[in-house]
Amino acid sequence: MTKQFGRLIGVSLGPGHPDDITRRAAAALATGARWTYPVKKEDEASYALDIVRRGGFSIPPDAEPLVFPMTTHKDVLVRAWARAAARTLELLANGRDVLFLAEGDASTYATFGHLARTVRELVPMVEVEVLPGVSSYCAAAAAVGTPLADADDTLAVIPASYGVEVIDHLLDEFDSLVLLKIKPMLDKVLDLLARRGLTHEAVFVEKVGTPDERVVSDVTVLRGETVSYLSLMLIHNPGRQRPPMRRGCRKKDTETEQ
Amino acid sequence: MTKQFGRLIGVSLGPGHPDDITRRAAAALATGARWTYPVKKEDEASYALDIVRRGGFSIPPDAEPLVFPMTTHKDVLVRAWARAAARTLELLANGRDVLFLAEGDASTYATFGHLARTVRELVPMVEVEVLPGVSSYCAAAAAVGTPLADADDTLAVIPASYGVEVIDHLLDEFDSLVLLKIKPMLDKVLDLLARRGLTHEAVFVEKVGTPDERVVSDVTVLRGETVSYLSLMLIHNPGRQRPPMRRGCRKKDTETEQ
Repeated sequence: MTKQFGRLIGVSLGPGHPDDITRRAAAALATGARWTYPVKKEDEASYALDIVRRGGFSIPPDAEPLVFPMTTHKDVLVRAWARAAARTLELLANGRDVLFLAEGDASTYATFGHLARTVRELVPMVEVEVLPGVSSYCAAAAAVGTPLADADDTLAVIPASYGVEVIDHLLDEFDSLVLLKIKPMLDKVLDLLARRGLTHEAVFVEKVGTPDERVVSDVTVLRGETVSYLSLMLIHNPGRQRPPMRRGCRKKDTETEQ
Repeated sequence: MTKQFGRLIGVSLGPGHPDDITRRAAAALATGARWTYPVKKEDEASYALDIVRRGGFSIPPDAEPLVFPMTTHKDVLVRAWARAAARTLELLANGRDVLFLAEGDASTYATFGHLARTVRELVPMVEVEVLPGVSSYCAAAAAVGTPLADADDTLAVIPASYGVEVIDHLLDEFDSLVLLKIKPMLDKVLDLLARRGLTHEAVFVEKVGTPDERVVSDVTVLRGETVSYLSLMLIHNPGRQRPPMRRGCRKKDTETEQ
């Protein structure tokens, strides 16, 4: 007899504001599927759950936290993924679909990827579905009111922790740069921006979409400040020297992004 | 007497499936604001309008197309932006909010940026709002079921028309590469992938979210094919040599993408 597993569904909630939840994700929350959500420690508040709570969704009493610790230790992480995957499989084995609530977009720097991969390593037949969402940097660009990328622009998204040498180098090649997790690198990035004359091309966005959202257009005021780790920087690089584009390709400029 | 303009609101609809519309965008469509939407030519069907039509939204009889031609001629484009902005200002002058329907995310390679900029060049006091949305490449990653970027990954998004030399070079620096508007470059990119041993790390996605969506995991079958211009390629680069990360930064690995 084949066991009938439920589907594992990664539900993207957007980066913070419940109105950024898609119609598809909102519908999934109302299907009666079992909810799971990430926490960093047992009994700690969940950022993802807070988004749906603020959105007026009623949280099922059996919604279950899964612990994903905040650590660099690969073995600790791997054990956490294994534990979370094992518990998810127990829930899936009832035949009921299991939702995993994900902040931002569940494909973009998200815990869901690890959970889904680990679940499928254990039981390859489990069906996984991802409901896409608004990424933090798209929401940040909207909050700032500036395009993230346009026409022939190149766009790079990197964790700021690669350091200023890498960031400096990428600014030669990209018209638009998103620095995630800017917190520990903030002052060094401010130095780099000043050196390259890009101070006024950068905007800092903290906790986008939440009641504590902060958009800082004059980034120089941030020097020395300890910002939230939920913060990013958008940098435009309007003076970049571009390589030539291929003939017959540029005529698609005014089209949709695909 | 100061004229009271309505707000200009860029409404991101996601790349094709009406269920990718956010709750905020859906609410905006129902406010009674005047709708505008992009077309490439007069009397041509609108991709954006088709998304909301398929979503069951009733289209106001006074919804108005704005023409954004498909051309590389900067002067033709600038004239089109000026005409669209002038018409938008006429509508805004009634004091009623004006929505501009945008495929994908209105900040990401979108016509809305040009419209908003041109409107504000003409009348700086006009208030502009952007409702963020699901980008085509986030929806594509979800459709494929593969993470777009993870933990310390670097992510680049570029129009494929920069050519294979640029793409080849970026693969040295990026773990994940999104090639937009892949159509005219497809065969050359397939050659490059073969040369770099990345053929099986690439996925092609066409018309994501629409009834004609196509996900092709064996990209070699596409050789010689004339694909839709609404197509992109996601490339993972698992063997990349990474520079060292800064100490004290990596501990944020398991957190949300901001």
